[in-house]
This record gives sequence, C-alpha cells and structure tokens, in this order.
Amino acid sequence: MTSNRGKYSEYKEMLRDVGIELELLLMSYPEEQLDTIEEVAERSTLYLRGTLKTDFFIDDSGLFIKTLNGFPGVYSSYVFRTLGNVGILDLMKGKTERSAEFRTCIAYFDDKLNLFTGRTQGLIATDPRGTNGFGFDPVFIPDERKETYAEMTTEEKNSISHRSKATQAFLKYIKKKTI
Amino acid sequence: MTSNRGKYSEYKEMLRDVGIELELLLMSYPEEQLDTIEEVAERSTLYLRGTLKTDFFIDDSGLFIKTLNGFPGVYSSYVFRTLGNVGILDLMKGKTERSAEFRTCIAYFDDKLNLFTGRTQGLIATDPRGTNGFGFDPVFIPDERKETYAEMTTEEKNSISHRSKATQAFLKYIKKKTI
Repeated sequence: MTSNRGKYSEYKEMLRDVGIELELLLMSYPEEQLDTIEEVAERSTLYLRGTLKTDFFIDDSGLFIKTLNGFPGVYSSYVFRTLGNVGILDLMKGKTERSAEFRTCIAYFDDKLNLFTGRTQGLIATDPRGTNGFGFDPVFIPDERKETYAEMTTEEKNSISHRSKATQAFLKYIKKKTI
Repeated sequence: MTSNRGKYSEYKEMLRDVGIELELLLMSYPEEQLDTIEEVAERSTLYLRGTLKTDFFIDDSGLFIKTLNGFPGVYSSYVFRTLGNVGILDLMKGKTERSAEFRTCIAYFDDKLNLFTGRTQGLIATDPRGTNGFGFDPVFIPDERKETYAEMTTEEKNSISHRSKATQAFLKYIKKKTI
C-alpha cells in the first residue's frame, strides 16, 4: 500500500459522514520529482538566475549508497545535519555490500543552462576517519585508495574527487567558449 | 566547517590557475528552506492551483524523531522508500530517548490558502508491529497507548491520529464557511 493510498483510506473514513466527495489524485509535486542532483542543480540555477546579475555556477552534490537504495542522495546535506556520519554508520552496521558513489553536478548558466556531472565510486568505511574535508568525507573511501576523503589534503582529494571531475568538464566548456 | 565552506575551499584550489575569480555566495535555495510540513504543503498547493479546476486539499505529513534532530521530518516519504522502518530502527538502536511526533498539515485553497495542522506525540517502538496503516505506522506508539498505529484499525487510528486532528480543524473551517 503506498503512502498515498493509505492516506486516502483514512480520509475516506473521516469524511464519510460530512458529505464531502473525495477523489484521489496521485500527482507528483515539484519536491518529489527531484530524484537527481541534476534536477536539484537545475532548479536552483533557474531560481537564482532572476536574483544574480553576474555569471554564476552552483554545485549540488550527494552521496549515494547502494545498499540503502541511494540514500542519502539528493538529501545528503539534510541527512548530514540531522544524522551525521554516525547515522550513516549505524545504517551500515553489519552490511557487507558497502559500495557508494559521490556525485557533483555543476550547473552553469550563460545564455543557456549547462550541467556538468562528476562521479567517484568508493566504499563506506566502518569507522569515521580523518578531519579534513567536510560532510561525509570521513566515511568515504574512494576506489583504489585506503584513506577516506577526510584523510587526504584538499589537493589529494581534488585529484580524484567527484567535484574535481565535474569541475574539469566545466572548465573544458569555459575554455572552449573563450577561444 | 559547513558544507558550503568546504566546497568553496576545494573550488578555490581547483580554479586557482585558470583565472576565474571566485566569490562565495551563501544562499538558501527553495528546497533547503522547506523545513516544515506547512511549507511543503503550501508550496505544493500553490503549484497544483494552476492545474486543478476544482476545490482541493493536499496532505503533507511527517514523522519527527527528537533524538534524530527531527529526522526524517519533511523527507519522511523519501526515507520510507529508501530506508523503511528497518532503517529507522537501526538509527534508534540503543537509544533510550525515543519520543517522536507525527504531524499532518492539510493545505486547502479556496479564495486563499488555509493551513490546518495536527500533531500526535508518541514513542518509537523497538520492533515493527502490526500490518495496518502505512509508512512508519508499525514503529509509532501514540502516547497513552500500547499498540502501534499499525496495530489499530483505521477507525481506532483516526480517533487519535495527527491526520484526524488536522481533518477536524479543516472540517470546522468548511462547516463555518457553509453556514
């Protein structure tokens, strides 16, 4: 039973005797459609476009954990604020499948919207390690490395990170445009 | 270090040599402002208003767990889809503070936007119990009850639920209007 159908049957009973005819509409609202960082980045860009008078780009990033069905995904920043790394490790306790992907989407608006995505695969650590970086960096070990993002210097992280891959694609576009 | 500042220092280093001047703007995007079910309900209503030609109401609901800083909150439906009740119980393992609140906001648009909120306090169960209801019902025990929402019939749940409280307020408004 979906959440919507569950709500519907409760309302149906509650409104039965008050003469309100009920029709169930299953519609997607804007916030439910935002399943990808690309969609979030795009919407944020279009929103900011009216406000800012200069060229700008925005960055939307997320950690997608396979065994958690992509959680925390586009809600990474909210989940980091509420649950933190401790919450992620609680959810991963005892799990052997620990693969995850960090994604960044850069949205850049010039005369049109341009999206540049970078991805880095890795594993969720069993304990938080390191104090560099931010967010979920202490629990993410990129593939072919032993350290977490948070155990690397900014320079080291930038040499392999999802964010730097998106940035490279972004810069390639900028340079092409400038020539 | 906030996520935004962390991103900034990475970009600063990556863009250092390409002659792009970087200015950090800390701005709230629409989706980050939606901290309450009232805001989500309001936005969904305004969005649907253009599409629907009849009177309508929408329901936004969420489970707010105190010791998890309000998680899953406005993202309850996403969190249910990805983590389910199992995920909530994993996060609550070993926690003695188990109080939580279920909230529904009904947004009804006639000539103006009207919001009706209902709240029910309770505790997070240690195991999922019951098969009625939907969503997080199997792990929520309302105050002064021993059963979870999912162990109650729709009628029993409606007699105490957050959703029925919002509905009562909504109906009171409708009746006043009709007279």
